[in-house]
Formats: sequence, structure tokens, C-alpha cells
Amino acid sequence: MEKLKKYVSPKDEDKFYHQGAVELLVFNFLLILTILTIWLFKNHRFRFLHETGGAMLYGLVMGLMIRYVTKASDVESGTVYECEKLNSGPSILLINITNQVYEYQYKREISHHNVNGHQGNAMLQKMTFDPSIFFNILLPPIIFHAGYSLKKRHFFRNLGSILTYAFLGTAISCIVIGLIMYGFVKAMVHLGQLKQWEFHFTDCLFFGSLMSATDPVTVLAILHNMHVDTDLYTLLFGESVLNDAVAIVLTHSITIYSPKENPNAFDAAAFFQSVGNFLGIFAGSFAMGSSYAVVTALISFMHLTKFTNLCEFPMLETGLFFLLSWSAFLSAEAAGLTGIVAVLFCGVTQAHYTYNNLSPDSKMRTKQLFEFMNFLAENVIFCYMGLALFTFQNHIFNPLFIFGAFVAVFVARACNIYPLSFLLNLGRKQKIPRNFQHMMMFSGLRGAIAFALAIRDTESQPKQMMFTTALLIVFFTVWVLGGGTTPMLTWLQIRVGIDPDEDLKAEAPSQSASNLDKNTTKAESAWLFRIWYGFDHKYLKPILTHAGPPLTATLPDWCNPVARLLTSPSAYGDQLKDGDTDYIINNDELTENRELSAHIPVPAQDSTGSSQGKEDIHEGDLGLGGYKLQLQHTPGQSQVNSSA
Amino acid sequence: MEKLKKYVSPKDEDKFYHQGAVELLVFNFLLILTILTIWLFKNHRFRFLHETGGAMLYGLVMGLMIRYVTKASDVESGTVYECEKLNSGPSILLINITNQVYEYQYKREISHHNVNGHQGNAMLQKMTFDPSIFFNILLPPIIFHAGYSLKKRHFFRNLGSILTYAFLGTAISCIVIGLIMYGFVKAMVHLGQLKQWEFHFTDCLFFGSLMSATDPVTVLAILHNMHVDTDLYTLLFGESVLNDAVAIVLTHSITIYSPKENPNAFDAAAFFQSVGNFLGIFAGSFAMGSSYAVVTALISFMHLTKFTNLCEFPMLETGLFFLLSWSAFLSAEAAGLTGIVAVLFCGVTQAHYTYNNLSPDSKMRTKQLFEFMNFLAENVIFCYMGLALFTFQNHIFNPLFIFGAFVAVFVARACNIYPLSFLLNLGRKQKIPRNFQHMMMFSGLRGAIAFALAIRDTESQPKQMMFTTALLIVFFTVWVLGGGTTPMLTWLQIRVGIDPDEDLKAEAPSQSASNLDKNTTKAESAWLFRIWYGFDHKYLKPILTHAGPPLTATLPDWCNPVARLLTSPSAYGDQLKDGDTDYIINNDELTENRELSAHIPVPAQDSTGSSQGKEDIHEGDLGLGGYKLQLQHTPGQSQVNSSA
Repeated sequence: MEKLKKYVSPKDEDKFYHQGAVELLVFNFLLILTILTIWLFKNHRFRFLHETGGAMLYGLVMGLMIRYVTKASDVESGTVYECEKLNSGPSILLINITNQVYEYQYKREISHHNVNGHQGNAMLQKMTFDPSIFFNILLPPIIFHAGYSLKKRHFFRNLGSILTYAFLGTAISCIVIGLIMYGFVKAMVHLGQLKQWEFHFTDCLFFGSLMSATDPVTVLAILHNMHVDTDLYTLLFGESVLNDAVAIVLTHSITIYSPKENPNAFDAAAFFQSVGNFLGIFAGSFAMGSSYAVVTALISFMHLTKFTNLCEFPMLETGLFFLLSWSAFLSAEAAGLTGIVAVLFCGVTQAHYTYNNLSPDSKMRTKQLFEFMNFLAENVIFCYMGLALFTFQNHIFNPLFIFGAFVAVFVARACNIYPLSFLLNLGRKQKIPRNFQHMMMFSGLRGAIAFALAIRDTESQPKQMMFTTALLIVFFTVWVLGGGTTPMLTWLQIRVGIDPDEDLKAEAPSQSASNLDKNTTKAESAWLFRIWYGFDHKYLKPILTHAGPPLTATLPDWCNPVARLLTSPSAYGDQLKDGDTDYIINNDELTENRELSAHIPVPAQDSTGSSQGKEDIHEGDLGLGGYKLQLQHTPGQSQVNSSA
Repeated sequence: MEKLKKYVSPKDEDKFYHQGAVELLVFNFLLILTILTIWLFKNHRFRFLHETGGAMLYGLVMGLMIRYVTKASDVESGTVYECEKLNSGPSILLINITNQVYEYQYKREISHHNVNGHQGNAMLQKMTFDPSIFFNILLPPIIFHAGYSLKKRHFFRNLGSILTYAFLGTAISCIVIGLIMYGFVKAMVHLGQLKQWEFHFTDCLFFGSLMSATDPVTVLAILHNMHVDTDLYTLLFGESVLNDAVAIVLTHSITIYSPKENPNAFDAAAFFQSVGNFLGIFAGSFAMGSSYAVVTALISFMHLTKFTNLCEFPMLETGLFFLLSWSAFLSAEAAGLTGIVAVLFCGVTQAHYTYNNLSPDSKMRTKQLFEFMNFLAENVIFCYMGLALFTFQNHIFNPLFIFGAFVAVFVARACNIYPLSFLLNLGRKQKIPRNFQHMMMFSGLRGAIAFALAIRDTESQPKQMMFTTALLIVFFTVWVLGGGTTPMLTWLQIRVGIDPDEDLKAEAPSQSASNLDKNTTKAESAWLFRIWYGFDHKYLKPILTHAGPPLTATLPDWCNPVARLLTSPSAYGDQLKDGDTDYIINNDELTENRELSAHIPVPAQDSTGSSQGKEDIHEGDLGLGGYKLQLQHTPGQSQVNSSA
């Protein structure tokens, strides 16, 4: 009874709260340290350690301290109690001990070999927080931000290649890693390090799928800062964004795949069910995400049209935008789909439609908000990765498995990039040069997604081994490959310092003279994409945004009444001058770029315009990539499309 | 064993995640609905239902639906298991059931009479989330935002009155409510509705302290929108902000107060210990909060001075600002102080010092970020209040107690406002008129803080009765008093539509001519305050910000080397023209106002300046109060203080 009191007095409950505060304080401290370091690095133009690498390093040091400095306190926690009277594991357990009822919440099932890990240091236990936090709280803002900041112009140009790398490439990578790891597992069984029944081929494929999620955040930040060729940047960025979605759904499908009899034998029915699951989940999540974005676009569009004074409340717009995007994630999760994939496509669609309907202030607010959340979430994850190496108590370091994983990851990346690039170059007019391919090979970093997928299940011994190995691969790739980006760029003789402004300026005069180089654009954008773009411009954009021609001009005559109803008054000024989709594409891009430069905050004191453009951080700015001059709004451009 | 499987299969675990998604989706849906309603209301200038009232209404309807539409599902959860072998309640319980180990996390102790409430509807249980979420996640942004947006000029003018209302007034209110409720409790015991030993005088005082936290968010939003007299606004806003802090610490102190023998008898030692606790916790939290703000100011100041290009990374500044402010809260909690109080004074100090060091972009970003978080948190709390009326399963509706509470709350508010106003008017040169007093009496709304304090402990029957009653008082005051604000203003003949610009413009010419009406200012600001302000301006501001004169001018000669080290180069331009603190006060205020208008985002397309000032939402804008024209930066003003 005395012992009992110890745990339930209000003061102790307070202590529980305060311990939560201490853990959060540790993370706050790490993040503050990271920010100060980034500040210092940025100032000294030090490029060998990226912020994420720094966050990981600080996490590592803190994990080391927590592990070896704090003492075991809650000794009794590890004891296993035998309760024969219980015949189920209810979600809430009410236990009557000497006439006092205590409420316990179900957390999880524990394998017997892990029970020891729960004894001892309570601080370590507290620092290892719930994996679902990664998936439900930390990843969504990162993925949404990636989707929201897809560099649209170049992205659509390279859409075919990006899709090939993301879908086919990830599948190849998954299978190659799976096969190589299966070979190593066989060897381990042969050497007696592992029991046959512990590690199936599906486990190897599972490892393959989670290790196929590349996260070249470090490389992209550096490429962006150094103004490397935009096509290379777009290929890498687009691939990594879509590849995350593919890897997550792939992992999910492999988890569901359960052959009936022999787990090592190939079961065709189960395999096709898995493929069906993959396609169903992917398509469902895509539909869920984009439909939420379309709803957001419609709401903001309606409000802009009918209640013209509502752009006076930018916070309401921002709030609605934020909540609806989050709802896309939650709805997908609630429907058994993949929230991350939904939120990715929600971000892409929001950027394409809703963004155009927002007031200038809301545009800036949403960008800054998502950018900030992305920054925080990213650094928390990397700090936590560093921490996890020492605070996670069930690591299994198997040298052979780790060696095998390193080999598998690099071979798989090579099998993904080189053959696919060769195939793509057969169809592309603008080939992907050799040095770009090497750079893409080099940029196969593993980061947040691989970690989050690996930490989701760490109960069984194979899963623990995978988690440990994944963590080490993340450390290696982020530090070594991330740090080596700048030397690698020099070594591969990739041209840096290309000003995207010049890139566009070179195009702009030809456009304003309506003298378009149609052939180039046609060759680069696939026919399927052009059909979609034409449809999008003629029907979707006029319905969902203020951009594009009025519906009355694009729909057949008999649809006129409907068209009038759906068209915003402001769209009438915009007459489609040319039916050519190529023109539309370029025209649309210009509109986009002009909008981006339209909401730069100019301090009232500084009206000379010298700070213009500095704050524009929309496109492709991963993390803190760089705040650099974007397209200026020149009168020549505005004549092309003056009413959008 | 079959039953067991039901709970532990991975699919079921997935279901657990998805249920979390469903609950969050409910809140998202409510918030989206609230935003759309606010949008509609703002458009139609409908003022009888404020957004918080709307959020509460939607929550109520949703709670009703969840209560009566969803079915009981998790029947087994309510069963109490007898585990004699357990002799303590460890924080993590490992239970071995038929050779499988399950992990359970300690949640809380449950009184026997509440066990029934845990049976049945799992959805209701899920919707009633952890009270610590209110204190640790939802309240801090609201309180920080309140501190950050204190209307400083008028606040310092009325500091004496505000402190009197906040400290003395809250104490009076607490004691009056406590006494009246004790009378009603005695009556209830007499009528046999309550047992003597269940409800002590300290419980009544506890109720008094939590019901003393006023939250006139609705009234303030309306007053702000209607441009009511700034002094009335400041008195109300200042009182409600500080009063929250006082009420929270008071509640904490009363919980700690534990007389040794008879709980109803007065124990002088315990009483003085409580008073000591109150003062200690308050002072400690104040020190914690302001020292974090000072650290932030110093860091941002150093970076501005030494690495001049760092204002190029506004997100880092914003991140640092956010993390350090949150750390103030967490550190106070970890040290056993009151985090809410720490974060309040952190906000006040950040606004006073750090704000001046931020780059224009960071100023806007921090404001928008905190405003957004405040908006979300506030509406979540009010939605939840509506929900709680139906989803909380242990309500105790006692008509006599509820009636008593309503009487007590209004009598206590009267005992707070009228006598204190009378006393204050004896000393004030600018009296608080009768109609202002009535308006303050009328604005005694109860909101988020009272609710959060009441929900923190709902285990015992008296506490449940208090929670139910507090909830009803919040409903009544928010809907009836909040809705009646506009008629009340008309009835009390309080002048509305005062343009704060004119207020300042009337002062500005006299200042730019250095012809100050010293007597008025002197009479309004107390001597203690003037000494502090002089010290602040001469020593603190130069050390912590770029505003104010250089230290070399204000410190004695022998301190010169130190002063040179601490002074930023940019401060040297600013020579103190006049040692008069009155001048400094006004001068400083001008600087502040000018800064506020200095970072208005001007869309590049709209360079006529017509939208200038629209976005300025810093001072005293609670929630969505209103986006209205703030002080313009006129050339005349900038001459007064050109180098700040």
C-alpha cells in the first residue's frame, strides 16, 4: 500500500507531466542548437555538413549523454505480472488493487525477448516515442510541402522520366534489395547467425521496399543553392517526392501480402492481390488527396467571386487551406488508404489550382506556414534519428546483414538509374547525360521516410535488425554522401551557377512576340500530357480558378448557360488568343511565375525595390535551401496575359 | 485465446490508428464549419454570435450526434479485473496472459463511482481527450499571443489599475465565490443533497479561483472591431490577460494548501505557506519567462550586429523565436512552476525587446504564426467545450449548486469591479467613468482558462459537479453576455468608432515640435513605472535592442569600455535629445508604431499604396478581431526618431 501511494499521489502525477516537459525540452534544445549551427554555417558558406546532418549529430551526442548519464529509476516497471484471471487484452484495463481502481491503457504486445529492454532506464523509454507520431504528425507537413513546392514548369516537362524512375525504378530497387538480402540471409542461416524460420523472403522484400525510399534533401538543398541545371534538379526532386509515395504504398502492400502455405514459396494469387492492393491504395489515396484540394479550390474560388471583401481575412483562408489539406490526410487514413500519398497529391493539386485563388497575403502566409512546419518536422526527425541510435533499447547489430544492406542499396540504386536512363534516352530528345546519371546515382540518400517505415514495427528480431541497419544506412548516406555533394559536382563537371532567371528571360522575349518554338516544347512534353494540359486549361482551370479563358469560350455553344454560371466575371477579360496547347503551357507558366513575384513583402521604409524578390521562396526550396532572386514581373510579360 | 487475438492483430492496431484519424477529422470538420460560418458572419456584419460562440454551438451539435448516434462497441473495457498479485501501480504494466506479454501504460486512478462511466461507448471515451493537452498544447499559444499583442502604450498608462484589478480583484472574486458557494454547500448538506465530508471550504475556494479567470475574448473582439475607447479596451484586455495568470497560480496554491487537522478549520501556517507558494510560483514563473525572452533578444541582437547578412534567413529567426518561447513554457513546467504564466511574460518581454531586433520579414512571420496558432487553439478549445457537454460521461447536474454558482459569479464580479474602481478613481486623474465600470462588470465572461482548470481534475464527485457547473457558466456567459455586447454598448452610451489614428495624430504634432504636455503624461503614469521606464530605456533597451540611445551616452563615464562593447554600432546615431522620461515614453511609442507600419506586405502589382496598413494586425487583435487600418508611417514621425 505504501508503494502504491508512491505512484498515485497528485504530486507524482505532476511529475509525470513535468517529465513530458523535460523530454520536449531536450528536443527544443537540440533544435535551437541546430538552428544556431545552421546560422553559423550559412554565414561561413560551409557546405560539408547540411542542417539535417547537424541535427543528427546533435541528436547522437544527446542520445549518448542520456544513455550513459541518466540512471535507471523506475525499476519496478520491468516486472512481468502474471494475471491468470485476464482472458483478453482490452484497450483499457481497469485493475482493482487493494480496493483502488487504476486505469491502464493498452499500448502493444511485447515479444518475450524484448521484455528485458523494458527494464531499467525510464528516461530512455520516454525518449523513444510512439512511431505513429512520425507517420501522423511529422511526415505529413514534410510531404505536403514537397508536393506544394514541386517546380511545376520543369516537372511537367520531365514528367515521363520522373514517373519511370519513381514507379519502375522503385519497384526494381525493391526487388533487387530483396533478392540480395535474401542471399545474405541464406548465408547468415548457413553460418548459424539466424534461424531459417525467422526471416522469410517477404521480410527481405519488406526491407527492400522501405530502403527504396530516397530522400536527397541534403543534395537538393545544395543543388538549389548552387543553381545547378534545373533539369537535373527537377529529375531528382520529382523522383524523390513520388518515390516516397510509391515506397510507402509498396511497404504497405508487402505487409498485407500473406501467402497461405509456405511463406517462402511464391503464391500467385497472393502476389496479384498485393499488386491489386498497391494499385487500389495508390489510386484511392491519389483521388482522396486531389478531391480535397479541388474542394478547397472551389471554396476559395466561390468566396472570391461572391463575397469580394473576403480576401480581407487572410487567416481564415489560411486556416481553411490548412485544415482541408490535413483532412485529406486524415480521411485517407480513416478510409484505410495511405494518408501520406493523399497529402502529397493534395499538395500538388493545391499548388496548381487553389494557390491561384488565394489573396496575395494568403499565398504568402500558406507558403511560410508550410515551410516552417516542414523545417521543424524535418529537423525533429533528424534529431530523433541521432537520438534513436542510443536511446532505442533493442538494437541488433549484425555485421553481415549490415554489410549486405550497404551492398544491396548501392547495387539497387545502380540497377534503377543506369538501365532506366538508357531506356529513357532512347525516347528523350534532350538526353540525360552521363554525369547527370552519376549524380543521380550518388544522390540515393535515405532519410526520414525509410526511418519512419523501419521504426513502425520493431517488435520481432528481424524487424529490429532491419531498423538498426536502416538507421546506419541513413547515417552513412546523409553524412558521407550528403557531405560529398559539392566535391562530387566538381568532379562530375556539372555546370553550376545557372541563373533560372536567365533561363526564362531567354524564353520570354520569344513568347511576348508570340513567336514560339513549338517543336522544342512538343518534343519534350508527351502527347498524353499535352491532352491533359489542354483539358486542364480549357475546363478545369476556368472552373476552379480565375486563371485561363472563360468557359464560355472553351465549351461548345449548347453548354453556354452552364458555362456562364461557372465562370467568374473576372475571367471574361481573358480571351484565348491561340488554341495551341504549347502556347497555353508557356503562357500558363508565365502567369504562374508572375504570380509568384506578385506578393513579395516590401517593407514600407524600403520602397526602392532593392529587396524585391529576396523573400520569394516558393519553388523547390527544400528546407532552407536559399532565398534567392526569382522571376521579376516585367511589363513585357504582363502584356501577354494581362487579366489572369 | 480467440478473444485475445481480436486485440493484438496488426489489423486491429491499424484500426486504432484510424480511429485516432476519425477523431481528429471530427475536430477538423468542426473547425472548417466554424471558419466558413465566420466568413459568412463577417460578410454580413452579423455581430450577435462570435466565432467562439459558433464553434461551441457546432461542438454541441456534434457531441449530441456522437452521444446518441454511435453505439457502444468496446463492452469489455469497463470490466474491473482483480489482480491480487499486484502490489503497486507501476507506470508501465507488463502482463503475461497465456504466454503473451502485453504492455499497458498507467493512466490514472479511478474512483469507484466512476467505473460505470467507463463502460460502453468507446467513441465517447476517445472524444474526451487528456486534460493535459489543454494545458500543455492548446493554452500556451493563446496566452503567448495575448502577451505578445498587449497594446503597450495604453497598457503602461493604465498599469496601476490593471494590476489592481488583476491581483486584488481576482483575490476578492475568489474569496467571494468561495464564501457564497460554501453557503450553498451548507444548504445542500442541510437538504440532504450532499454529505458534509464531501465538500470542504477549500473546495469552495478552489471553485472560486477557477471561476475567477475571466476570458472576454468575444467582448474584446467586438470592442476592437467597433473602435471603442482605447482605455476601456486596454483595461479589459490587460485585466483579463493578467487575471488568467493570477487565477492559475491561485488554483495551484489552493490545491497545495492542506491544513493538517480539520479541513474546515483555518490553519494559519498552511495559509501563509499557500500565500508564500503563490508569490514564489508567480515570481519564479515571471523570472523564467522573461529571462528566456531576454536570451532570445540577446541572440537575435548579436546575430543582427555581428553577422549582418543573417536577416536573410527569416525562417531561422522565426524558428529560434518560436522554440525559445516554447522552451520558456517547458522549463517552467519542468521546474515545477507555472508554464502558462512564464509564457505570458515571455510574450510580453519578447514584444518589448526581441521584436525590435527581428528583420521586417521575421516580424511579420512571427506575428502571423502566433496569430494562426492562437486562432486554431482557441477554436479547438471552444469546439471541445461544446462537445464536452455531451461526450463527458460523469456530469453531475445539481440545480442548487448551479444556481449558487451563477449568483456567486455575478456578485463576485461586482465586488471586484465597483469597489476597486471607486478606490482607483481616488488616485486616477482620468477617472474610470460609470458606464465603463458597468461594461467591465458585464464583460466578466468565463472561457478557456476556467474550463481548462475545471477539466484538469474530474475524479471526485465535487470536482465533477464543479466541472459541469463551470461548463454551463461558460456557455451562458459566452452566448448571452457575448451576444449582448453590441446592445450593451449602445445602452451604456459608450462612444464607438474612435479612430486610434486620430488619437495619435492629435499627439504627434505636439511631439514633433518637442512641445510635450508633460503634466498629463506624468499624472497618468505612476512614479514607479516612470523610474522603470527610464531604466529600461537607458540601459535595457540599448543592451537588448537597437532602439534607444547608445549606452555610452547613458552610462557613467567610467563604464565607457563596457558600454562600447555592449552597444550596437547603429545605436550611435541616436542621441538622446532630452533626459525627460515622458519624452522617452512618447518617443518610444512612436518608434513602436512606426515599426509596426514598417513591414506591411505590399503586393508588387499594387504599388499605389492603397492596401498599406490593411494587413497590420499586431496590437490587441484577439483571434480575428479585425484587420483595420493601423498607424501610418508619416514622414513627420520618422524625423522624430530616425535611427531606431
